[in-house]
Amino acid sequence: MRIESVAPAVDGGRYPVKRVIGDEVAVAGDLVADGHDAVAGVVRFRHEREPVWREIALVAGANDRYGASFAAAALGLYRFQLEAWIDAFAGWSAALGKKVEAALDVRVELLVGADLVRAAAARAGADAAALVRAANALASPERSPAERIDVALGAELAALMAKHPDRSAATQSAEYAVRVERGLARFGAWYELFPRSCGKNGKHGTFRDAEAMLPYVADLGFDVVYLPPIHPIGRTRRKGRNNGLICNPGDPGSPWAVGAEEGGHTAIHPELGTFAELEHFRREAEAHGLELAIDVALQASPDHPWVKEHPEWFRMRPDGTIQFAENPPKKYEDIYPLDFESADWPSLWRALYQVFEFWCERGIRVFRVDNPHTKSLAFWEWCIAAVLERHPDAVFLSEAFTRPKLMYALAKVGFSQSYTYFTWRNWDWELRDYMHELVHTPVAEFFRPSFWPNTPDILPPHLQHGGRAAFIARLVLAAGLSANYGIYGPAFELMEHVARPGSEEYLDNEKYELKAWRLDDPRSLRPVVRRINRIRRQNPALQRNDGYAWHPSDNGALFAFSKRWRDNVVLVVVNLDFHHRQGGHLALDLGALGLDRGAAFTVHDLVGDGEFSWQGARNYVELDPHVMPVHVFRIARAP
Amino acid sequence: MRIESVAPAVDGGRYPVKRVIGDEVAVAGDLVADGHDAVAGVVRFRHEREPVWREIALVAGANDRYGASFAAAALGLYRFQLEAWIDAFAGWSAALGKKVEAALDVRVELLVGADLVRAAAARAGADAAALVRAANALASPERSPAERIDVALGAELAALMAKHPDRSAATQSAEYAVRVERGLARFGAWYELFPRSCGKNGKHGTFRDAEAMLPYVADLGFDVVYLPPIHPIGRTRRKGRNNGLICNPGDPGSPWAVGAEEGGHTAIHPELGTFAELEHFRREAEAHGLELAIDVALQASPDHPWVKEHPEWFRMRPDGTIQFAENPPKKYEDIYPLDFESADWPSLWRALYQVFEFWCERGIRVFRVDNPHTKSLAFWEWCIAAVLERHPDAVFLSEAFTRPKLMYALAKVGFSQSYTYFTWRNWDWELRDYMHELVHTPVAEFFRPSFWPNTPDILPPHLQHGGRAAFIARLVLAAGLSANYGIYGPAFELMEHVARPGSEEYLDNEKYELKAWRLDDPRSLRPVVRRINRIRRQNPALQRNDGYAWHPSDNGALFAFSKRWRDNVVLVVVNLDFHHRQGGHLALDLGALGLDRGAAFTVHDLVGDGEFSWQGARNYVELDPHVMPVHVFRIARAP
Repeated sequence: MRIESVAPAVDGGRYPVKRVIGDEVAVAGDLVADGHDAVAGVVRFRHEREPVWREIALVAGANDRYGASFAAAALGLYRFQLEAWIDAFAGWSAALGKKVEAALDVRVELLVGADLVRAAAARAGADAAALVRAANALASPERSPAERIDVALGAELAALMAKHPDRSAATQSAEYAVRVERGLARFGAWYELFPRSCGKNGKHGTFRDAEAMLPYVADLGFDVVYLPPIHPIGRTRRKGRNNGLICNPGDPGSPWAVGAEEGGHTAIHPELGTFAELEHFRREAEAHGLELAIDVALQASPDHPWVKEHPEWFRMRPDGTIQFAENPPKKYEDIYPLDFESADWPSLWRALYQVFEFWCERGIRVFRVDNPHTKSLAFWEWCIAAVLERHPDAVFLSEAFTRPKLMYALAKVGFSQSYTYFTWRNWDWELRDYMHELVHTPVAEFFRPSFWPNTPDILPPHLQHGGRAAFIARLVLAAGLSANYGIYGPAFELMEHVARPGSEEYLDNEKYELKAWRLDDPRSLRPVVRRINRIRRQNPALQRNDGYAWHPSDNGALFAFSKRWRDNVVLVVVNLDFHHRQGGHLALDLGALGLDRGAAFTVHDLVGDGEFSWQGARNYVELDPHVMPVHVFRIARAP
Repeated sequence: MRIESVAPAVDGGRYPVKRVIGDEVAVAGDLVADGHDAVAGVVRFRHEREPVWREIALVAGANDRYGASFAAAALGLYRFQLEAWIDAFAGWSAALGKKVEAALDVRVELLVGADLVRAAAARAGADAAALVRAANALASPERSPAERIDVALGAELAALMAKHPDRSAATQSAEYAVRVERGLARFGAWYELFPRSCGKNGKHGTFRDAEAMLPYVADLGFDVVYLPPIHPIGRTRRKGRNNGLICNPGDPGSPWAVGAEEGGHTAIHPELGTFAELEHFRREAEAHGLELAIDVALQASPDHPWVKEHPEWFRMRPDGTIQFAENPPKKYEDIYPLDFESADWPSLWRALYQVFEFWCERGIRVFRVDNPHTKSLAFWEWCIAAVLERHPDAVFLSEAFTRPKLMYALAKVGFSQSYTYFTWRNWDWELRDYMHELVHTPVAEFFRPSFWPNTPDILPPHLQHGGRAAFIARLVLAAGLSANYGIYGPAFELMEHVARPGSEEYLDNEKYELKAWRLDDPRSLRPVVRRINRIRRQNPALQRNDGYAWHPSDNGALFAFSKRWRDNVVLVVVNLDFHHRQGGHLALDLGALGLDRGAAFTVHDLVGDGEFSWQGARNYVELDPHVMPVHVFRIARAP
């Protein structure tokens, strides 16, 4: 007996697969027995805090594949394995049935069966007496063969025998793991916001000022409000406006230059406020249905207390200076990377873990981690597991824009969600191929994408030049394709689109200066954002990625995809040409929509409110970017 | 640093991949390092008889994938693993190059490099002095920066540093294995032959009689002559003609009912001859370029000596009789299966292993194993490894026609080759899908198909009704699609096609009676078989499966495929309609043929001797089954 191809698994079980609470974990494996033996087996599973395994019987599918599922009922790590054995009684029973049907003499077979039942009785505890009775009946020469066959093939005996299998020669698979997180790990809309720009009359904003924006963000329908680093900002080599080397008095500096004499990763920038004010902000956010996420950038400004207290945590250069960050030939003299291979790495790793623990203790559970790929994978595997051990509701978003396999490795070692290449995927084939990779390959078991049309670091070319249509299209693509998405606002909804020439960097970037946003700008995309987030909340299909399907169209400018979850089916069509009206026929994948060939159905536009009666796979759509570059249809079967 | 997705591997390294001697074993893996670190690594490998690992440097491919290959220079088991580490010097050197290019001050960087070089000197043995000189040069304030940069970025220092890497924090992958067999495991044409039908004037044939057929088989171009079991045949419940329950005097019985009072699996059926005569037969075969294969059927007739000597090796029924073979409701009372889970299984397993050992000692190395799927997988894994340990040139063909995953499991545990479902795959999509599974999925790493158009057990419907065209087409499909193939002759080339009504069983099956074959029948396919085997020997592309490709045609009756190995390209087109002329256009996959788009080329028919000038992908073919149902083209680029 071999147990093969156990699923779900990441790298053969080296890493956990990811699920959220309430999911059914569908487990399967090939049970390959010699010859024609009947097999039986169970999935054994237990939560990491449970001392004993529970078991669910495996059910046979096609082609030697067996499956069963268990509920992910608690946050944390579940372990599971398959155990299987030869089911001699089931095999005997099936053979007996065929022989009886062929009217063969089965008296010896009944004696064989009696032996099997007697052996089970010895294992059966309270059921022993019933089994002994059955064995005697099978073997009894006084009873008629027909009577004995009835007992042998009866449901009662089958149930009793299934209850007491001979597992002495059972085979066990390796152990596999499932990381169960809360729903927010899979579904959430994030809004990134610089509190310091919330001040009145050009003054540095505080948490208290930022509270005034919470009703606005909540009204837009977001789930998470995410703040760039809230710690004291270094003064030494502080960057000026537009990342300039010259810092003028009053320039606030980049929040990612973490640490000053006021403190480091466990301190708050005095100009933002106090711990009490942060706490107040967090509770206000929660009162508006928003969860607070903070940014954890594990690096130090030259003024970070660690530089003096723990110079051994940094890389020293032969001239006695500390190695600053660089991406040759670019230099970032205002940032010192930490040395994860430092001789005293255990104390460094523990201190970094304590940063997460510190903020967890202050009620924060959602962490956007800056540049995790320039840190150690082994550190993340250890640190995230340690945080989740005490705070299984913590959520980690990996902000790595790096090589694909490294992005995936970060997800494998524990990040709940990950930034992606979506920001640069524009054309139909790019979106189609990328979504295929994310949803329909083993990547889906461990990598939860978060799609961002913009970030403070990235103003991609299509947003610079595509106008209002581009902003709406990219919003709908991000929010529709990926259950997790986010925007950097208010820059996004106010369609901020001016870049430093020849770059993807915002001109007059908020990273280096205070901005005054005109939230009441009548051109704001606020109504569209609000509508899209409401659609996401009302349509469970958009709250996960596994029901995604792509649909061909005969016009490459029209990108169509759907998501389906149970009865809820949403079909999105986006005009990727932000300047011209485009029309064409879709060739819908009706199976993916849960529709029969030739079915009639209604598509109701949740954005434009139009309603159309369609039939079959081929249907015409036309989108004018100057009006509305998208359809977001809910599909209803015609009555 | 993580090492991921190591290839080649079967089930993550649980089983060896298969290669033949002389192959280059191309190993690859993803080396995923944190951040922007440069990495380096090696493949470590050793033959099971070598005490130490050898190493070959990994070379970077795209997207963090690295590879290297080693030669499978000896039969037996190789083990390999990847080892990789951060290459600090390479990273430093790349960064230095960029800084120099940007005209930055690199004096401190040169000191960093000097430290790296000095550290290497401490590991460098004979190269230490040269490294110390280089380190001093890098650090020397007396030399000009330009001079120091020249040393730093010079090829000489790079080579020295690559020779002495710091592997103290290296990461190692798991160990993987490669089973190296001889070429016959991958490429061979088999001819199955009942020696007992080689007698003169209706008498029972002997090995000496069968020797007379060796020139015939050799002339047909086969590589292996395979004999059904050569052991004494049981008398108790011996089957009569056409598998009849009544055995008449003179009926020879089925050779698969192994064992009689004359002996069991290590004895020879007296009517076939003596050990000396078998030896003579084997040497004669070898003199004709034919290797002898025998059939090992691990089961016993009721007369097998083991039944008396080791009743504990069989399953006893409650009435004191031994359990015979059955496939309910069918009974095979002339055959007793062995009980691989017998209480005394170690002695049984050893005795079975000794059967192979016994015949190996008598010069036989090729074993066709009967029904291995009704035995234990664990037994095969142990037994085949044990035989190969002493006789690494042994070849095992698995005759399992059972569930797909069990067939694959047998290949994983050690069988060199396997019978397949080819015998029942007739239509274009069946052949295409099956070949895809065998060649273009992970199956290819462990399962070597052997395609048989017929066997003594199977006369498939298309051969019963398809006439000469069917025989030729199935021969060319078997011999062309699969580097290993075989026929049961002379039934095949004499187009024996009469079945017991409603069955796939030969009427008057040679399994139960002596046959008199008219080898000189003028209608014999002998010339075609000879031609096809010669084509296989002359075209290396047909001697392996990895260059296989399928080509679409606009007529589903025309099945086209190609095989390519280096410069040798063979394109086969088969008319699957055995009754009507069919014509149509092929849409050739030019890339698979090694041809450029729009290229002109010549196709030379190796069967029909025609020659055509073709251009591009779309070309017309027409095949008349009454003339010749196949083209076997060699492709030559136009000069």
